[in-house]
Amino acid sequence: MTGPAGTAAGVVPAAGRGERLGAGAPKALRTLGGVPLLVHAVRALAAARAVGLVVVAAPPEDVAQVRALLDDHEVAAEVVVVAGGATRQESVRRALAALTPDVDVVLVHDAARPLVPVELVDRVAAAVRHGAPAVVPGLPVADTVKRVAPVDGSEQVVETLDRSALRAVQTPQGFRRDVLEAAHAAATDDATDDAGLVERAGGSVTVVPGSEEAFKVTRPLDLLLAEAVLARRRANGSLQ
Amino acid sequence: MTGPAGTAAGVVPAAGRGERLGAGAPKALRTLGGVPLLVHAVRALAAARAVGLVVVAAPPEDVAQVRALLDDHEVAAEVVVVAGGATRQESVRRALAALTPDVDVVLVHDAARPLVPVELVDRVAAAVRHGAPAVVPGLPVADTVKRVAPVDGSEQVVETLDRSALRAVQTPQGFRRDVLEAAHAAATDDATDDAGLVERAGGSVTVVPGSEEAFKVTRPLDLLLAEAVLARRRANGSLQ
Repeated sequence: MTGPAGTAAGVVPAAGRGERLGAGAPKALRTLGGVPLLVHAVRALAAARAVGLVVVAAPPEDVAQVRALLDDHEVAAEVVVVAGGATRQESVRRALAALTPDVDVVLVHDAARPLVPVELVDRVAAAVRHGAPAVVPGLPVADTVKRVAPVDGSEQVVETLDRSALRAVQTPQGFRRDVLEAAHAAATDDATDDAGLVERAGGSVTVVPGSEEAFKVTRPLDLLLAEAVLARRRANGSLQ
Repeated sequence: MTGPAGTAAGVVPAAGRGERLGAGAPKALRTLGGVPLLVHAVRALAAARAVGLVVVAAPPEDVAQVRALLDDHEVAAEVVVVAGGATRQESVRRALAALTPDVDVVLVHDAARPLVPVELVDRVAAAVRHGAPAVVPGLPVADTVKRVAPVDGSEQVVETLDRSALRAVQTPQGFRRDVLEAAHAAATDDATDDAGLVERAGGSVTVVPGSEEAFKVTRPLDLLLAEAVLARRRANGSLQ
């Protein structure tokens, strides 16, 4: 199979409550090595050879400021900032609407995964180029995973899952543009996972190997790890 | 309900292939801040008020060396080193056989979780003391988790799991001694998860909140994070 042969674009939904500039410590603007997480994420996408355009969905009231923030930092591709919606899904939809006609592959990326290696972005894009309609990076799950249920005020184990068949899914998630647009058009509830929309629409989703460094910065220790990874990259002479 | 009122003991199975002293870079003896992971793990268990004894199952050929290693470092409880078995399960069995009669609560801990906070060890032990026959610490899963299957040489998503009901399980796992012994006596195949044995024997397993710092050191980035956590603890004046 061969896939589309046009341009790949990155989409970064960053219009959630945690990302509003007025809201105390907006998540995407928390800094890592002096640079906001969002800027790291956009730069990492843009650094991929495959990517010619990145669309960021910002909180509507902060579009100009996010635009200015991105202008302050060197980014290796064109960046468009649009007003996001009330839900993550609406933000992705608005970003999709801003894509130029030559874009036929879309990479949706979490603003909270600032250190995704460029190799991973290229791997996901290449898998779409080679014919997979939807692609997610995934890693084996390190811990035993159990399903729980509340019983008498405490949490009890219902079952232990077969870990060998589980993957912890990262981003960017890559899609043929028409597949992602159709999945979003068909979706009824809010999705935090674009590949899940494709699955629900009956499409197939391929998993490619993820990267340890594409971890999500959500808990306090994640930021500590991100700082350590960034310090190591700088010590090794990496640009980022 | 109230539980047992005797002594709690820690059990650390560290006799696996990765832990053999002759084998290049044995996992449990990899150092963190100059101290082997195994020593960190034993110290962390021993630091809990609840714990009066720790039994380490070492590779049979390395018992004397592991004994000497632990003697070189201050540990706040009595430590017994026994020869482990060919499987993890056999190692846990041999460690159980070395427990003194006053022990009625057993905490089984991964040697590869060196930075488990003493509060978590106490929380698990307390839950057993308060009547739960088996207790595991668990954290919500940060990434979306999908189940996969191989299709035509690639990996395809079969389903996206409901993450809200999933817990990534850590150690120490705590047990009433008689419950753990019965589960091990009934087990037929090798277990990497002692609570799983209790589940298979029909017992109930309670989940208590885990700790970010109880993460398992398996991948390269884990060691980087462990060094950063340890450096922060030392900067904060913590003893460990």
